Amino acid sequence: MAAIASLQIKTPTQSTPLPKTYKTHFRLQSISYKPNPTRNLTRKPTRISCGLIEPDGGKVVNLVVPEFERDLKKREAMDLPKIKVSRIDLEWIHVLSEGWASPLTGFMRESEFLQTLHFNSLRLGDGSVVNMSVPIVLDIDDAQKERISGSGSTSVALIDGSDNPVAILNNIEIYKHNKEERIARTWGTTAPGLPYAEEAITGAGDWLIGGDLEVIQPIKYHDGLDHYRLSPSELRGEFEKRNADAVFAFQLRNPVHNGHALLMTDTRRRLLEMGYKNPVLLLHPLGGFTKADDVPLSWRMKQHQKVLEDGVLDPENTVVSIFPSPMHYAGPTEVQWHAKARINAGANFYIVGRDPAGMGHPVEKRDLYNADHGKKVLSMAPGLERLNILPFKVAAYDKTQQKMEFFDPSRAQDFLFISGTKMRTLAKNRENPPDGFMCPGGWEVLVEYYDSLAANEAGRVPEPIPA
Amino acid sequence: MAAIASLQIKTPTQSTPLPKTYKTHFRLQSISYKPNPTRNLTRKPTRISCGLIEPDGGKVVNLVVPEFERDLKKREAMDLPKIKVSRIDLEWIHVLSEGWASPLTGFMRESEFLQTLHFNSLRLGDGSVVNMSVPIVLDIDDAQKERISGSGSTSVALIDGSDNPVAILNNIEIYKHNKEERIARTWGTTAPGLPYAEEAITGAGDWLIGGDLEVIQPIKYHDGLDHYRLSPSELRGEFEKRNADAVFAFQLRNPVHNGHALLMTDTRRRLLEMGYKNPVLLLHPLGGFTKADDVPLSWRMKQHQKVLEDGVLDPENTVVSIFPSPMHYAGPTEVQWHAKARINAGANFYIVGRDPAGMGHPVEKRDLYNADHGKKVLSMAPGLERLNILPFKVAAYDKTQQKMEFFDPSRAQDFLFISGTKMRTLAKNRENPPDGFMCPGGWEVLVEYYDSLAANEAGRVPEPIPA
Repeated sequence: MAAIASLQIKTPTQSTPLPKTYKTHFRLQSISYKPNPTRNLTRKPTRISCGLIEPDGGKVVNLVVPEFERDLKKREAMDLPKIKVSRIDLEWIHVLSEGWASPLTGFMRESEFLQTLHFNSLRLGDGSVVNMSVPIVLDIDDAQKERISGSGSTSVALIDGSDNPVAILNNIEIYKHNKEERIARTWGTTAPGLPYAEEAITGAGDWLIGGDLEVIQPIKYHDGLDHYRLSPSELRGEFEKRNADAVFAFQLRNPVHNGHALLMTDTRRRLLEMGYKNPVLLLHPLGGFTKADDVPLSWRMKQHQKVLEDGVLDPENTVVSIFPSPMHYAGPTEVQWHAKARINAGANFYIVGRDPAGMGHPVEKRDLYNADHGKKVLSMAPGLERLNILPFKVAAYDKTQQKMEFFDPSRAQDFLFISGTKMRTLAKNRENPPDGFMCPGGWEVLVEYYDSLAANEAGRVPEPIPA
Repeated sequence: MAAIASLQIKTPTQSTPLPKTYKTHFRLQSISYKPNPTRNLTRKPTRISCGLIEPDGGKVVNLVVPEFERDLKKREAMDLPKIKVSRIDLEWIHVLSEGWASPLTGFMRESEFLQTLHFNSLRLGDGSVVNMSVPIVLDIDDAQKERISGSGSTSVALIDGSDNPVAILNNIEIYKHNKEERIARTWGTTAPGLPYAEEAITGAGDWLIGGDLEVIQPIKYHDGLDHYRLSPSELRGEFEKRNADAVFAFQLRNPVHNGHALLMTDTRRRLLEMGYKNPVLLLHPLGGFTKADDVPLSWRMKQHQKVLEDGVLDPENTVVSIFPSPMHYAGPTEVQWHAKARINAGANFYIVGRDPAGMGHPVEKRDLYNADHGKKVLSMAPGLERLNILPFKVAAYDKTQQKMEFFDPSRAQDFLFISGTKMRTLAKNRENPPDGFMCPGGWEVLVEYYDSLAANEAGRVPEPIPA
């Protein structure tokens, strides 16, 4: 088709030359995306990484109030109308605060919401387009709307479950939350049983409130994993420190097996062949809301750690970090968000697999999305033209070599496909997968997790999960 | 919001200057949207109108086979696998054949279908973007797919209800028709009772077939209205003949009352004030599929004719023509299609009302769309940046002046709002609306239509509707 962007890897010519950097700097000044005057006056702009892909809108947004202002902002928040936020809301505040959704400066107002639903993209003040495929919105109910409107305030305070002020939302705009339309346009279905919709939309308020966020302090979870939660700016710093001239991101929400590892190692090899000198892998497990039958983050991180310790991936050119976004399971729509956020973190290559962000249809006996649509939609998505899409090669267990290998259809009989369901069943039954499927340390973590689940289900007190 | 395109009318500076025209011509040569080699070799390109807005993709597509080739193509069609097309399919063939959907050259292939569903736009070979918000697709069922695939042919013949070959579809691509996803993403709901979905999707085949169309002869309906069906190229010719320096389009599927007329007259006045010398109105009723309770095209055309005869609109600067597209009732998604198609016909101003292409929710007791979303989405839509959007001013019946006037909130008590339902009820009951609501000749047509309906319902033989 005329309009399909190439799935081929581009040559590395577009990266690093110095003059481009200056040009980039120059262009940034003229971008007029919803500047927040308060922030512009009080904070110095985030430094732009020279060799890395430019973030959407030209700079990585940082919505965290500088330290010296925090007490003031806390007091300010006390006097404002308050909205108690959910765990998922907090995850979005985290996402927004660090600029994963750059150039967004807060929860979407109606124009951003509509553009997201209809076009999966936002047009900026200078006419350029950035990708934005999932709504990042905050709902309120009728009573909250009444209270806020009645107060006459143009700002509201967002407070957590313990009533601590988390953020201030300024220049608010309240608009109708048409849940049915939001769900239909985001997921391409309105069938009951979509995990994110059930968790965060169906029971939500009938209004959305958008505005510019000031986040009072960095969002922390105190679960022993915060050191894995690098912001896009911190990741950019890390890639620069390592002199990366290409960054390839791998989004995941499942345990890593040797097929994944093979793919990542092979991608690095291909990038080196293309002339890059130091491609760095961003191994980037999703850390926000996931559905009940996914392996929880703490166990996944343990498993990823083992994989690195076992030397399956080279720590020299691998950065493991947590992507704080909640999961939509919205397939071709969501994969764009996953890719776009990684541009903001400095990745210029994105590995995309079969049926990314997909799941089974909640009602019908089929996958919700066509397995190829994620890759296709990603390759055509507005605002992602700068990103190099790397389609996932299919790996399977090669019985002759007793290891994971790229599938070779000419000797199909040599290969064994081990599905996620099969893997889970094996781990639940404390059986071992074939040698070479996953490093033993990583497999032990999985078995341990399913053991803890079984203990829990049997009514015994489970092993405490690292908080 | 930063990303909202202005709703203001732009100054006329972007139209007509000669140097721009040359630049435009030059740019056209480099556009590489899916050229059809057959067509390029055998047909001369449609002439580009110099003073009018450039069509999407640079030229108005013409898919009708030249006269000297028609017999040959008919014979060719006889030997191909055949697909019998429905009335709505025929309407789309008509739409495609004349270039309303330029630069589309046939029913969508999967990449175009996905871009339409996800982005409401298509990216062309040169990186530019055109708007495309409703899927223009042709469905086939399992048996048809088997037959076509089994034949090994890369072309199929499309035949009408009387088995006459209508068109040949070349370089075909067959892909899955996920009806639920198509409906959800197009309408923002999957509720049963959407007129177009019930008519053309729910019972349709599970596959879509895309390709390049060769239409064997111009599509005609022989209903006494074909002379109203001007193609985009013919309309462009008409606007040039009249030396139009601005063309403002008014899409409608309802009888014209004096409020509409006021709006159109007032728009012309505003365009003259802005410096245009000869703004021409394209009064452009939709002629394809409409839902059962809309007034049928033949009666609407009679009514429009009366309005012109009664001098409510000035025939000197009004072109009345039929837009051959079927109606989706897909609100903010569809209004983009309505606007985009009119660009291709030469319109650079588009009048948009409250809740364009909207309807009641098929299941819930509310409008399906927020009444303002159509206008907002249209103003932000990719590929429509060149079009000037003119929001509809609210007109109502001014009791003091006994005529339709723009609503003045400072003397709200003087105004009477006459809804479509109220209008229909009056006409059904053979009552008259207040003087000045609609010209008497136009009103008579409406009364006559509802009489014929009543007669029909009572089991009597109705007056024949002009065929």
